[in-house]
Amino acid sequence: MALRIGVIGTGMIGTDHIRRITQVLSGAEIAAVTDANLDLAKQVAQDLPDTEVFGDGHDLIGSGQVDAVLVTSWGPTHEEFVLAAIASGKPVFCEKPLATTAEACRRIIAAEVSAGCRFVQVGFMRRYDAAYRQLKAVIDSGVIGAPLMYYSAHRNPDVPSTYTSEMAVVDTAVHDFDVARWLLGEELGAIRVLPAKQNSLGGGLKDPLLMVVETESGVLVNVETSVNIRYGYDIRGEVVGESGAVALADRNQVDLRHAGLRSGGVPADWRERFAVAFDTEFQEWIDTIASGSEPVGPSSWDGYAATVVCDAGVRSLATSERVPIVLGDKPALYRN
Amino acid sequence: MALRIGVIGTGMIGTDHIRRITQVLSGAEIAAVTDANLDLAKQVAQDLPDTEVFGDGHDLIGSGQVDAVLVTSWGPTHEEFVLAAIASGKPVFCEKPLATTAEACRRIIAAEVSAGCRFVQVGFMRRYDAAYRQLKAVIDSGVIGAPLMYYSAHRNPDVPSTYTSEMAVVDTAVHDFDVARWLLGEELGAIRVLPAKQNSLGGGLKDPLLMVVETESGVLVNVETSVNIRYGYDIRGEVVGESGAVALADRNQVDLRHAGLRSGGVPADWRERFAVAFDTEFQEWIDTIASGSEPVGPSSWDGYAATVVCDAGVRSLATSERVPIVLGDKPALYRN
Amino acid sequence: MALRIGVIGTGMIGTDHIRRITQVLSGAEIAAVTDANLDLAKQVAQDLPDTEVFGDGHDLIGSGQVDAVLVTSWGPTHEEFVLAAIASGKPVFCEKPLATTAEACRRIIAAEVSAGCRFVQVGFMRRYDAAYRQLKAVIDSGVIGAPLMYYSAHRNPDVPSTYTSEMAVVDTAVHDFDVARWLLGEELGAIRVLPAKQNSLGGGLKDPLLMVVETESGVLVNVETSVNIRYGYDIRGEVVGESGAVALADRNQVDLRHAGLRSGGVPADWRERFAVAFDTEFQEWIDTIASGSEPVGPSSWDGYAATVVCDAGVRSLATSERVPIVLGDKPALYRN
Amino acid sequence: MALRIGVIGTGMIGTDHIRRITQVLSGAEIAAVTDANLDLAKQVAQDLPDTEVFGDGHDLIGSGQVDAVLVTSWGPTHEEFVLAAIASGKPVFCEKPLATTAEACRRIIAAEVSAGCRFVQVGFMRRYDAAYRQLKAVIDSGVIGAPLMYYSAHRNPDVPSTYTSEMAVVDTAVHDFDVARWLLGEELGAIRVLPAKQNSLGGGLKDPLLMVVETESGVLVNVETSVNIRYGYDIRGEVVGESGAVALADRNQVDLRHAGLRSGGVPADWRERFAVAFDTEFQEWIDTIASGSEPVGPSSWDGYAATVVCDAGVRSLATSERVPIVLGDKPALYRN
Repeated sequence: MALRIGVIGTGMIGTDHIRRITQVLSGAEIAAVTDANLDLAKQVAQDLPDTEVFGDGHDLIGSGQVDAVLVTSWGPTHEEFVLAAIASGKPVFCEKPLATTAEACRRIIAAEVSAGCRFVQVGFMRRYDAAYRQLKAVIDSGVIGAPLMYYSAHRNPDVPSTYTSEMAVVDTAVHDFDVARWLLGEELGAIRVLPAKQNSLGGGLKDPLLMVVETESGVLVNVETSVNIRYGYDIRGEVVGESGAVALADRNQVDLRHAGLRSGGVPADWRERFAVAFDTEFQEWIDTIASGSEPVGPSSWDGYAATVVCDAGVRSLATSERVPIVLGDKPALYRN
Repeated sequence: MALRIGVIGTGMIGTDHIRRITQVLSGAEIAAVTDANLDLAKQVAQDLPDTEVFGDGHDLIGSGQVDAVLVTSWGPTHEEFVLAAIASGKPVFCEKPLATTAEACRRIIAAEVSAGCRFVQVGFMRRYDAAYRQLKAVIDSGVIGAPLMYYSAHRNPDVPSTYTSEMAVVDTAVHDFDVARWLLGEELGAIRVLPAKQNSLGGGLKDPLLMVVETESGVLVNVETSVNIRYGYDIRGEVVGESGAVALADRNQVDLRHAGLRSGGVPADWRERFAVAFDTEFQEWIDTIASGSEPVGPSSWDGYAATVVCDAGVRSLATSERVPIVLGDKPALYRN
Repeated sequence: MALRIGVIGTGMIGTDHIRRITQVLSGAEIAAVTDANLDLAKQVAQDLPDTEVFGDGHDLIGSGQVDAVLVTSWGPTHEEFVLAAIASGKPVFCEKPLATTAEACRRIIAAEVSAGCRFVQVGFMRRYDAAYRQLKAVIDSGVIGAPLMYYSAHRNPDVPSTYTSEMAVVDTAVHDFDVARWLLGEELGAIRVLPAKQNSLGGGLKDPLLMVVETESGVLVNVETSVNIRYGYDIRGEVVGESGAVALADRNQVDLRHAGLRSGGVPADWRERFAVAFDTEFQEWIDTIASGSEPVGPSSWDGYAATVVCDAGVRSLATSERVPIVLGDKPALYRN
Repeated sequence: MALRIGVIGTGMIGTDHIRRITQVLSGAEIAAVTDANLDLAKQVAQDLPDTEVFGDGHDLIGSGQVDAVLVTSWGPTHEEFVLAAIASGKPVFCEKPLATTAEACRRIIAAEVSAGCRFVQVGFMRRYDAAYRQLKAVIDSGVIGAPLMYYSAHRNPDVPSTYTSEMAVVDTAVHDFDVARWLLGEELGAIRVLPAKQNSLGGGLKDPLLMVVETESGVLVNVETSVNIRYGYDIRGEVVGESGAVALADRNQVDLRHAGLRSGGVPADWRERFAVAFDTEFQEWIDTIASGSEPVGPSSWDGYAATVVCDAGVRSLATSERVPIVLGDKPALYRN
C-alpha cells in the first residue's frame, strides 16, 4: 500500500516535491493538496490521479485519506500545521524553517515531548547528500582525530532583488549551521558575523559574509556566504582535525582539455547540486513512515536549534559582535 | 496506473531489478514472475503484493496482467522470450546479451522489422550514466573537434573462478564496445585483441587484454580489460579529438588528507559505480513505455552489433590477428 | 665576474643558502663568512674555495672582497648588520625578521630613505613560488573581479618543543601576512586571533589558531595556523573575488591507484614545498644586484609591516580582541 | 674550479644550453664554441666571458681549455664528434639522436667498450623530470605489483610544416620509447604503428598515431602521438600493474573557478613542461663529471636502443605490421 501524503502548500517547492513523489520515488502517492491560493491547488490536483483538494490545511490533516503530511506553505504558517499534525498523531515533514520564532519551535517541541514520540521531520536535506554523508563517516571513523575547525562555504551565482542581508544568515547559512551541528555532533555556542569587502555586483547587500561560529567544545566553524559570485553554485566544506583533514570533493562529471585548460563544470544551482539528496531525503522518509516507525531525520530540536542560531546571527550581523547561542536543555526524546 | 511488468528470471540480476522497480522507482509494479527454478520465483513473489507466479515465460508473456516484459533469464533463453514478446506486441527489456549468436539476433531484428516498430530495449546501462552522457554531450558539441581516438579501460578488482579469457571480451568489454558505438555514432569495423603481460593474480587468465578496434571512419578505439587489478572498479574513458580531449572524471565524494597523502575513493564494484545509471535506465524505460511510445534506448540492432563485435573479438583473442567486423545493412527502423 | 657575497651567520639557514649559491645557482660566490661561533664559520669556510673568515660582521661588511651581504644571524642582531650594510652602501639580503621591533625596522627605513635608494631585501620567499605568482597573476588579470576574501592555511606536521603559541603568529603566520599584502596590493588594517579547539597533539599550545585580518579596503583575510597536524606540510590559499575564485592547486607529481584509493602526496616539509622558491628568490636577487640595480624584492617597508602586524597579532592572541594595525605613512622610496 | 665545457653547435638548442649553464646552473663555464656557421659561433661567444671560438669541432675537442664536450650540432655529425671525444678521453654530452643509424651507434658503443669506460651521455631529459622519477619510484617500490601495461601519450599543439609522419616516430615518440625502457627496466621487443583517423588540422600527416610496443617480458606499451592537438603540450603516462596503477599527475599551479568552470592550465610547450628537467639533467651531469666520475645518465646503449626502436617504428608505419626489434647483446659496460 502506498503511503498517502497530503501536501499543504503547492507553490514552487511543494510542486517540486509532488513531482518527486509521483514521478521519481516509490511507495507514496499524493492523496490530498491544499494551498492558500485554492485555484493553484486545484490546478496541481488536475494532473494527479485521485488527489482530493481541501479548502484548508486543518481539514487536510484531519482527513482519513491522509497518512502523512507535507508542509510546504509560507513559513509563518508552519507552526499551526505542524502542531495540528502532531495533535492528529500524523507524521509531518516540514520544510525549513520549522517555525519562524524560537518560541514557536519550543511549542512544537513541547507538543512532541508531551505526546512522547517524534512526529516531525525538518527539511535539512544536506544530511542526505552522499558527499556530506561520506564526510561524516570519515570524521566518525576517527582517522583525522578530533575535529578542531570546519570551513563551510555557500556560494550562489546570484539572488533575487528581494533578498536581504539577513536572509544570508536565515535562509542561506542556516544549512551550513545545521550541517555543522550534524557533522560535529554538538551544539553551537556563539556566533560572530563579519561582512567582508562588499561585492559590487550585489546591489548593496552585505555580501560576502564571514560567520565565525564556536561549538560548545570550542571547534571554530567558519561559514562564508557569497551570494552574488556568478561563477556557479559551489558548496564547500572541510573539516580540520588533529592529524588530518577531509573536504567535500569537486564534482565534475568529465574533464575537458581545450584551449590551454583542463576544466570541469561547477554546478549551476542547488537543483543540480542537491537533486539526488532531495530524492534520498524523501525516499528515506517515506520508507520509515510506511514501515510504521518514527522519523529519524532532522527533528524539531534541529529545527529549533537552527532558528536560535539564525536569531543570534542576525543580531551579530548588525554589530559584528560575538553573540552567545543559548538553547536550554535538550529533551530526552531528541537525544541519541 | 502503474505499468505492470512481468519478470522472466528471478536470479541475482532479476531480483535486483525487482527491488529497483518496487522500492526505488515510480510508475511500475511487478505483476508477474517466473523462473526456470519455480521455487525461486515463488519465494520472490511472496515478498511482493499481488504478484502472480507463472510456470513458464510464454504464459507470463501471454498474460493479460502483464503490460511489459523484463527478460533476465539465462542468456541462451533470451531469443525465444524476446521473440514471444514481439509476437505478443509487448515491450520487452532484455538484459545483455540480446541473444547468444548473431543469427539469433538477426531473427529478432527480422521480427521487429516485420512488425514495423520497436519493442525491444537491451540493457546497456552505461548510456544512462550521467558522466557518459556528459562525455557524449561534449563530443556532440564539437568543442574537441572530430573524435580520432577513444581510450576505454574496464578494471575490475577480481572475477570468479568460472571466468574465462573469452568472457573478458563477451561479458566485460561488450560494454566498452557498446559505449564506443554510441559515443562515436558509428559502427566498429575491425578488432585486434592483444594479451598484455599476464597478471599473476589472475589464475592463468589472459589478463589484461588490449583490444584495438577500428571504427568505420578510422577512429581507433583502445579497450583495456584488467579483471584482477584489486585496487577497485575503475571505469575510464577518454576521447581524443582534433583540438581537444575529454575524459570521464574521477568520482570521489571527499578528499582526505592523512599520513602524507591526499586521497579519494575508487568505486568498489559495478553496483557502486553504476547504481544510479541502472535506476535511470529503468525509470526512463518505464516512463517511455507507460506513455505508449516505442522504446528509445539500446535497440535490437545495438544488441546484434555487440554480439558481432564480441564474436570477432573472441576470434582475434585466439590469434591476435585483426578480424573484420561485418554487420550488413542497418534496417531503417533503427536509423534516426 | 661572479658576485662576491659575504655571509653573516653560518647556522642551519646560512649554510643552506651557501649550498644554494655555490652548488645550485649561477653568478655568485661566497667570498666571506662570519658567525657568533667563529669555529663554525671556519668549518664552513674549509669546504669553500677562497672564502675568507671574518671575526665580526662589521669587518666582513667593510671588506673590499665583499660586494653584497647576506644576513642569516640571530634575529636580534639583524638591525645592526643591516644598518652597517646600508652605511657601507652595500646590498644586503636579510632573512626574516628584518628586525625584532617595529622601532628597529623604522630606523632601517630611515637609513634607506636618507640614502635615497633601496639596499635591503627581506627573505619572504613565497613571492618567488611559481604557484603564488600565478595566483597573483590571475588576481591582477581581473578575471575574478575585485578580491573580497582570502583564505590562507599554514599547516605543519609538528613543531619543536621550544615553539610557543606566539611563534604561530610571529614565525609561522608572518608568511601568510606578507603574502596577503603582496597578493592584494594593500596594507592590513586590523587583526583578531581566535584559538580553535586545542589540538591534543600540541602539548598545550594554542593550536590551531584562526586569525581574521582586515585589509584597509575591507577584504577579510582568514589565516589558519595548524602546526601539529601530522599529515604533511600543506600551504593553502584561495582568493574569493566578486565573480570567481582562484586557489593554489594541489601538488602531487603522480596519482596512485591502490587499495581502493586514488592518492597523491602532500609535501613533507617546507624544504620540499618551497625549495624551488628559495632558488628563484636568490637567483633573481643575484641577477639584480650583479646588474647594478637596486633590489626589487620584499623591501624594508615589507619587513616593517610584517613586524607591526605580528605585534598586533600577539596582542590579540592574549585577548581574542580586534587590534588595529597602524603603520604610518609609506615613504615614497617604497611606492611604485 | 668550474668545469670548462666546449659546445659544438650553437643553434637554438645549443644556445639554450649555453644560457642554462651560464645563467642558471653552477659549476661550469663555456670555454669554447664552434658551429658549422662560424659567424653564428662568434656572435654567441661575444656575450660570454673568456670563450674561445674554434673553426672546427675536432680542434675544440682537442683543446686543453676544454674539459668536457657538448654536442648540439646537426644529427648526421654527431657520430664523428662523439667518437673524437671518446678518442680524446673527454666526457661528451650528446643531444639525441646519438647517431642517425644503428651502425653508427654500434661504432660509438665499440669505441667506449674498447676504452673500458663510459664517456657518453645522451640527452633523454625525461629521466630527470621529477614526476617521471616519482613514477619510477612507485613502480620500483612494488606497490602496484609487476607492471603489465604502460600508456604514454605525447600531445603537441602543432608542428612546423617541415614535420613528416616519420618524425612522429623518430623525433617525438623516441622520448616515449626511452622512458618506457627506463621505467620498466627492460628492452622493447616489437612495435606496430597504427594511424588513427587523420586529424584534419595536420595538413596530410598521419596523425595521431598509436604505437603498440611489446617489451621483452610482454608488457604492452601504448604510445600515442598527437602532434596537432592544439589544446596544449600534454605529456601523459600511466603504468598499469598487477594490483594498482600509477600515472603522471596533472600540473596546474592554480585552480580557477570562473563562468561555470573549475579549470587549471595545461603546459603550452615542452619548454614550460620540461624546463626544470633540462636544468636537473645538466646540473647532475656537471656535478658527476666535475667529481671525476663516469656519466651515469642515458648511455650510448640507450641511444643505440632508441635508434633501433625508431627504425622498426618507421618500417611499421609504412605497413601497420608488427616489426621485431633486435638489439643484440648488451655489453657489460652498460649493465646495471
